[in-house]
Amino acid sequence: MSRKVPYRLYLTEEQMPKQWYNLRADMKEKPDAMLNPATAKPVTFEDLCPVFCDELVKQELDNQTRYFDIPEEVQEYYKVYRPSPLIRAYNLEKALGTPAKIYFKFEGNNTSGSHKLNSAIAQAYYAKKQGLNGLTTETGAGQWGTALSEACAYYQLPLTVFMVKCSYEQKPFRKLVMQTFDAKVIPSPSDTTDIGKKILSEDPLTGGSLGCAISEAVEKAVTTPGYRYVLGSVLNQVLLHQSIVGLESKIAMEILDEYPDIVIGCAGGGSNLGGLIAPFMQDKILGKNNARFIAVEPASCPSLTRGRYAYDFCDTGKVTPLAKMYTLGSGFIPSPNHAGGLRYHGMSPILSKLYHDGYMEAVAVEQNNVFEAATFFAKQESILPAPESAHAIACAIDEALKCKESGEAKTILFGLTGTGYFDMSAYSAYHDGTMTDYLPDDAQLEEGFKSLPKIPGIQE
Amino acid sequence: MSRKVPYRLYLTEEQMPKQWYNLRADMKEKPDAMLNPATAKPVTFEDLCPVFCDELVKQELDNQTRYFDIPEEVQEYYKVYRPSPLIRAYNLEKALGTPAKIYFKFEGNNTSGSHKLNSAIAQAYYAKKQGLNGLTTETGAGQWGTALSEACAYYQLPLTVFMVKCSYEQKPFRKLVMQTFDAKVIPSPSDTTDIGKKILSEDPLTGGSLGCAISEAVEKAVTTPGYRYVLGSVLNQVLLHQSIVGLESKIAMEILDEYPDIVIGCAGGGSNLGGLIAPFMQDKILGKNNARFIAVEPASCPSLTRGRYAYDFCDTGKVTPLAKMYTLGSGFIPSPNHAGGLRYHGMSPILSKLYHDGYMEAVAVEQNNVFEAATFFAKQESILPAPESAHAIACAIDEALKCKESGEAKTILFGLTGTGYFDMSAYSAYHDGTMTDYLPDDAQLEEGFKSLPKIPGIQE
Repeated sequence: MSRKVPYRLYLTEEQMPKQWYNLRADMKEKPDAMLNPATAKPVTFEDLCPVFCDELVKQELDNQTRYFDIPEEVQEYYKVYRPSPLIRAYNLEKALGTPAKIYFKFEGNNTSGSHKLNSAIAQAYYAKKQGLNGLTTETGAGQWGTALSEACAYYQLPLTVFMVKCSYEQKPFRKLVMQTFDAKVIPSPSDTTDIGKKILSEDPLTGGSLGCAISEAVEKAVTTPGYRYVLGSVLNQVLLHQSIVGLESKIAMEILDEYPDIVIGCAGGGSNLGGLIAPFMQDKILGKNNARFIAVEPASCPSLTRGRYAYDFCDTGKVTPLAKMYTLGSGFIPSPNHAGGLRYHGMSPILSKLYHDGYMEAVAVEQNNVFEAATFFAKQESILPAPESAHAIACAIDEALKCKESGEAKTILFGLTGTGYFDMSAYSAYHDGTMTDYLPDDAQLEEGFKSLPKIPGIQE
Repeated sequence: MSRKVPYRLYLTEEQMPKQWYNLRADMKEKPDAMLNPATAKPVTFEDLCPVFCDELVKQELDNQTRYFDIPEEVQEYYKVYRPSPLIRAYNLEKALGTPAKIYFKFEGNNTSGSHKLNSAIAQAYYAKKQGLNGLTTETGAGQWGTALSEACAYYQLPLTVFMVKCSYEQKPFRKLVMQTFDAKVIPSPSDTTDIGKKILSEDPLTGGSLGCAISEAVEKAVTTPGYRYVLGSVLNQVLLHQSIVGLESKIAMEILDEYPDIVIGCAGGGSNLGGLIAPFMQDKILGKNNARFIAVEPASCPSLTRGRYAYDFCDTGKVTPLAKMYTLGSGFIPSPNHAGGLRYHGMSPILSKLYHDGYMEAVAVEQNNVFEAATFFAKQESILPAPESAHAIACAIDEALKCKESGEAKTILFGLTGTGYFDMSAYSAYHDGTMTDYLPDDAQLEEGFKSLPKIPGIQE
């Protein structure tokens, strides 16, 4: 049997990108600047340096530089687990009976189990290079914490991870993986920070939240000499590092003489989607294509489809700068759903701006549909997807079925960000028919919007 | 930074093997024939057909055919998750400060998490082609059961898995993965078979064993119309299918202009090791190299290093044919250790013969050493290995350190069969310093040897 396009295409080391791509450089309207909440002025290099590594602050604030060289040491580490394959989903196409060509970029084949390692390595590298004593971060589902633990173990950099308490208790294996990589894992809220103590005093039985864990991690970083804080999504710098995903995808598609008509990714904080679409969105902005871009979010945490485009804090404790983004309000408590990585009140300012300006679409999907798609996909493609990634699968299947109706052989590309080995209790609930969803009603959303900050002259 | 050998080498689809290699065809002395326990005569095609698919029986009994064509449908399925990468462990080499070149073939990048899928696909394919109604099998740690579930879901073939009861209870996630792929999973011993009922009546609280689960699966297969039994290791047919691992490795090394001085693999039933070494052992038998081959087994279940070369049953219930192999006796109850996939009383007859004839070495390693190696490796290579695979890592590190002492730049190839995502409780025990090992004393081994069958005129 001969065919032009292989099931899996791996780039050679020579073909791998040597620079990250900064989509902001090509955006006609830039994302609004982050604000210092104390002054309501755009944040400066000096504002951010106590929190983040110097080099990462530069990347965060740079709207102009189109390409950043990937440091040689980071390129070397990338080669330990990259390139990730671009996979043609022949079996899925056949099972759906669609004329569409479905491709996916699979980022799950590393021990962290997701794309998160791409940015973790970069951030740990810059921290080491700056001679820092250690890092702090937070983790929800555990993928980011695992990725950063791997990277910090490699660079022999101490790491403290604040893990959302309910995840800490429900996912002991994730915690054990981080500990295997020498990370110190603390359930959040904890009594090791002032904000943690305050939250615990108000609600001693709370299971915690990502926003609260961020507050603790930031506090710990700024109060520990030589420490800095790192974040796995939302920020511009993270999308920059994740552009490796899109750049590799584009090179691989060029080799195959393909180009996507539709690019699809799940969206929580936006790092995977922002990375995947970056070079294709560049083409669209420059008028070179008319591709569609679709962000897929859980119906239980619908920041793009039902949120407001406003300045908001990135955390519950309100210690971070203010970012202009689609948000449900930092006071919005996302209902428990099984895609922990998508349970965040806000959305990357870059993606928010693109969505606001009409460059990108967004859809929200319900949980049972997500797991139906995940299970169907697993049987065809022999990969057990993470619940987060399965949001993109559900949308890709929908688009492929539309092609079946219309008879169009569109080329679909989606991001398969990770594997679901640590999510089997969710699969079990789906399998047993006991999976429920928690869709916020308008009153709940209004309650969340009340937490949006008032900024005189900017946001009343 | 330029270097000749990349971190990861993936073959293209065109470079992938199109035939399996049958090592028996080149062995100067063939493994002794399996015996029918009722007649003490070599088993025939007719003896085995009620238990196994016809095509697989042919492969099992064929000592002569050097290459078997991989059916085109199986080649297609292989392309869904293969080729697996041949990885140069640059970081490990550097951390050890060894002049040795360390390569490993990584089979863990598929949802079953191990090499087991290579044979599962072949066996499910032949069963489907024969028009069977379904299959039965057993699983211990769960990797084989998961792999076969994936393959059967793909071919839409019903599957019943007897899962060793203590694993069923300790590893609920493994069970859930199998159920996601539509397998019926039954804890063994169960009341669904006569042998299960008998074992339960003797010991209602037993946690089960692999030998006992095999007995139940075989009974279920031969008493259910249109069903057959399939096994994930030990058998000649399984080693034949697993030769894909060694064949790919050899092609990749040829591309790199490399050849291993030492080939290392963990050994439970022998499928991974037998597959990995096959084409290199062919060269050795034909006098083309003088490579060393090392089987690594747990000190708690030392079939090669402390067992007897004798005819024995493959299962506890004594329903299978008799195989000539290194064995601890089918009555030997392996102490609980964390490498469930290596907890088997016997060893592949092919590997047993090679070891007996001096073509292969064997070492036994203790559990704490295994996890020390696993953790060290994970931090260098960003892959969390399965405990089984970590046995090979421990040995590879030992050999690399010997090279450091002697100053020899040997080329080491080992098999990294799988990932350890479902083994975090074992990693946790190592991390906490509570990991123990259970080494059988001579009296315990003697007790096991008493269960060896007496076969008039052959084995008294």
